[in-house]
Amino acid sequence: MFAEVLRSLVEQTSGGVGAVVMGYDGIAVDQYLRPIDDIDLGLVAVEYANILKEIKNAAEILQTGELEEVSILSGGYQVLIRILSDEYFVGLMLRREGNAGKGRFLLMREAPGLRAQLV
Amino acid sequence: MFAEVLRSLVEQTSGGVGAVVMGYDGIAVDQYLRPIDDIDLGLVAVEYANILKEIKNAAEILQTGELEEVSILSGGYQVLIRILSDEYFVGLMLRREGNAGKGRFLLMREAPGLRAQLV
Repeated sequence: MFAEVLRSLVEQTSGGVGAVVMGYDGIAVDQYLRPIDDIDLGLVAVEYANILKEIKNAAEILQTGELEEVSILSGGYQVLIRILSDEYFVGLMLRREGNAGKGRFLLMREAPGLRAQLV
Repeated sequence: MFAEVLRSLVEQTSGGVGAVVMGYDGIAVDQYLRPIDDIDLGLVAVEYANILKEIKNAAEILQTGELEEVSILSGGYQVLIRILSDEYFVGLMLRREGNAGKGRFLLMREAPGLRAQLV
């Protein structure tokens, strides 16, 4: 159900490694990982689920409006996250040199469809 | 010493609200806040210092390479963060409609100069 969208997110974004729909509890609803990559996307997503929960809390405390999007750039990878609801988010992981602009655009475009399936 | 750079970051980025050089312990080295804004930048930065520490730890656990940059978009604001060292980071806060691309570029350009002053 989510698998097709996750796969197209990864394949349409140059440098795409994997994508996941996940709850803030760290439990993945669905995920797609390019078979060529040796990254443990499950582990990455669980770590980020915790962090996201805190960013969400911070946004509430600070009253800066609801959290929508988080991007993280580290030495080898980029992680793009879009909030779907109070319980779920979608994450896309790219190689460092990947096209983050395209990734963000696709996440924004696909979010409403993913959200509709989560209800 | 940092004040001039922080001020130019805020003033050269359309929608710029404030900027801060801060330690992961939540203590600001220096900050500049546009006098027109009613955001408590100190509070925002302290909240994010904690979160950044966790993102940094996650990047280490996951061996995805050293953390370099974090961007957060929420209802009303964008927060752009660039890591300066193991102890310090620089953060730039923009209104939602601000020019995040310009902000990221300026943070990248100014980071080496800020870093040099932190030693």
